Amino acid sequence: MKVLILGADGYLGWPTAMHFSAKGHTVLATDNYGRRTRCKSINAEPLVEPLNLDLRAKHWREVSGKDIAVQIGDCCDYAWLKSVVAEFQPDCVVHYAEQPSAPYSMADQGKAAETLQNNLMATMNVVFAVRDAAPNAHIVKLGTMGEYGTPNIDIEEGYLTVAHKGREHTFLYPKTPGSIYHLTKVQDSDLMYFATRIWGMRITDLNQGPVYGIDTDQTMLAPELQTAFSYDDVFGTVINRFAVQAVAGYPLTVYGKGGQVRGYLHLRDTLACVELAAENPAEPGEFRVFNQFTETFSVNDIAGLIQSVGERLGYSVAVDHVDNPRKELEEHYYNPANSNLLDLGLQPHFFSFETIKPLFDFIETNKQRIDTSLFAPKVLWQTGL
Amino acid sequence: MKVLILGADGYLGWPTAMHFSAKGHTVLATDNYGRRTRCKSINAEPLVEPLNLDLRAKHWREVSGKDIAVQIGDCCDYAWLKSVVAEFQPDCVVHYAEQPSAPYSMADQGKAAETLQNNLMATMNVVFAVRDAAPNAHIVKLGTMGEYGTPNIDIEEGYLTVAHKGREHTFLYPKTPGSIYHLTKVQDSDLMYFATRIWGMRITDLNQGPVYGIDTDQTMLAPELQTAFSYDDVFGTVINRFAVQAVAGYPLTVYGKGGQVRGYLHLRDTLACVELAAENPAEPGEFRVFNQFTETFSVNDIAGLIQSVGERLGYSVAVDHVDNPRKELEEHYYNPANSNLLDLGLQPHFFSFETIKPLFDFIETNKQRIDTSLFAPKVLWQTGL
Repeated sequence: MKVLILGADGYLGWPTAMHFSAKGHTVLATDNYGRRTRCKSINAEPLVEPLNLDLRAKHWREVSGKDIAVQIGDCCDYAWLKSVVAEFQPDCVVHYAEQPSAPYSMADQGKAAETLQNNLMATMNVVFAVRDAAPNAHIVKLGTMGEYGTPNIDIEEGYLTVAHKGREHTFLYPKTPGSIYHLTKVQDSDLMYFATRIWGMRITDLNQGPVYGIDTDQTMLAPELQTAFSYDDVFGTVINRFAVQAVAGYPLTVYGKGGQVRGYLHLRDTLACVELAAENPAEPGEFRVFNQFTETFSVNDIAGLIQSVGERLGYSVAVDHVDNPRKELEEHYYNPANSNLLDLGLQPHFFSFETIKPLFDFIETNKQRIDTSLFAPKVLWQTGL
Repeated sequence: MKVLILGADGYLGWPTAMHFSAKGHTVLATDNYGRRTRCKSINAEPLVEPLNLDLRAKHWREVSGKDIAVQIGDCCDYAWLKSVVAEFQPDCVVHYAEQPSAPYSMADQGKAAETLQNNLMATMNVVFAVRDAAPNAHIVKLGTMGEYGTPNIDIEEGYLTVAHKGREHTFLYPKTPGSIYHLTKVQDSDLMYFATRIWGMRITDLNQGPVYGIDTDQTMLAPELQTAFSYDDVFGTVINRFAVQAVAGYPLTVYGKGGQVRGYLHLRDTLACVELAAENPAEPGEFRVFNQFTETFSVNDIAGLIQSVGERLGYSVAVDHVDNPRKELEEHYYNPANSNLLDLGLQPHFFSFETIKPLFDFIETNKQRIDTSLFAPKVLWQTGL
């Protein structure tokens, strides 16, 4: 299978590229390095900034004997993207090429506009490039569970059948996003649903929960193959950030009451989910939605789990409840479905001492690089940065 | 009341500006003349291109003794828009500043991207400019009934309460738009709902059906005060286009079976609805949705009505069923609610010989300008222009 990875410089993009390459697929990895620019712009770089994609592909070749082709360019540049799709003729396009941070999108008008512009134009360009240059290709798009918000009914996988005044209709599940970033993902989903309905395209939307972990079968092969690992309040996901705080001896920063429940998954499971989606493509005209997480936790649950693992590893871990910078329900109903990927064969790596220890090991190795000034939330939902 | 009209050069914008001015409000009318550029770019100009806004404001002053201030600029230019809002300090912002054509948005990737870019960035900039420079102002945004699509259940006004597995939740009504243009309006609505939920803004979304007619109390005062009237397949609305076809002796172009039902309203009622929304503003934190139409017709109904009026006026009117360029249901359930504006006091001008005759008179006066090559649909939903 020929797999085009858009956004291959990100936390998930590079491990995904190696994962498909290791399985024998032909991989073209692209990025515009926008993540690096954004991280620098707010002085919140990853714990270790990885090598550039060309250098990582060189190391991957030395370690594995396999090629990952690299092209640097911007998905918002339609002429470039269309030529890449036309020349490579992918079977599957994995689209990660988005600004991925909710706090970044809430910092000010400029960053909100940048998020809207980048995420929506990139997605529209992907849709048109595939429609016009590789119409049978299957698009696998990373969405987020955060699109749904926290409705007072069960969250189904993508669609909701509504009985109303004696009649019935199945809608795309209505979304209530809580940040400009999450809003753009909802807008992406609406665009892709449109593309399947009107043009018969084949698209899978992976509504993913926050990912944690650093280790995959490939990233562990050499330090030069590691992925970008952010731990700051803007780009770091909560489990990763809490683990860094535990190693740094800094109290875990629970926002508000900590009763916010979300679905989570390990990085290894992200790769497995994307692979399952790619290996089992959507049909022409099908907008297929998978809720991509393996277990749900409240923020308090996570703090307890990280505290427990941290203390078993000899760290002293405190938990601090800080004012919630976000506008969100801190206690709510949450019961999302996630059977579609399990039905396709997903074997979850649940949170455990064994699955989380490699993360602590990586952080301990790079402990001297931790900047504790990056922990406290700085972007307030009401007033921005 | 200080009323800022964004998109005042359009079919609805200019009559709205005069309407508020006639009622004694202080009006600032803005536009970037993007409509004129787009019409020229596809060689589909209005039957009579109106004077520019400065000249029309001058004539309005002569006729009425009242001022309409004019500023030319682009809502996608945030610095410009914010300075306008900060200086004028509107009580109400009426936001028409969007690319309004479904066929235009479906012509090719460039026009789809232009539509997405213009409509979403303009709306985001309006939200931020009001939030940061005139936070108590009420935004009145023109949406479209086309956002809903044609679900198999009743279309409520903005929200839908869903009972599901023994629990209940009220969602923003889920939308299923049928063109890139309509999609951008859905995306706008999601953004504005977000702004009310997170920032406590006050916004009314007017989900309007296709508008018809040319006469208002103000446009009838002098030929120089008329508004832009398009009759082509891209920018013309169906009733207006059929009336021009009837006068030109060209068969009415019904798309497909003609069973497509939509809600319609007269231009006079658009002005009344916008005024009712402005005079009765949404509360802080409220995203208020009105379905803005006065009666529903199928395309076949409209063809019959225009044929009947036309023949009474002495025209010979034929009806032609052409291949449907769009992808839409040609027979479907359609039962949309529209009580909110009626409850506020709207007195509809229903379709009748009396309400439609001024439209025929206007077209007859300008009959020699009709270009019959603009009637046939050229943009196909599957393949574009």
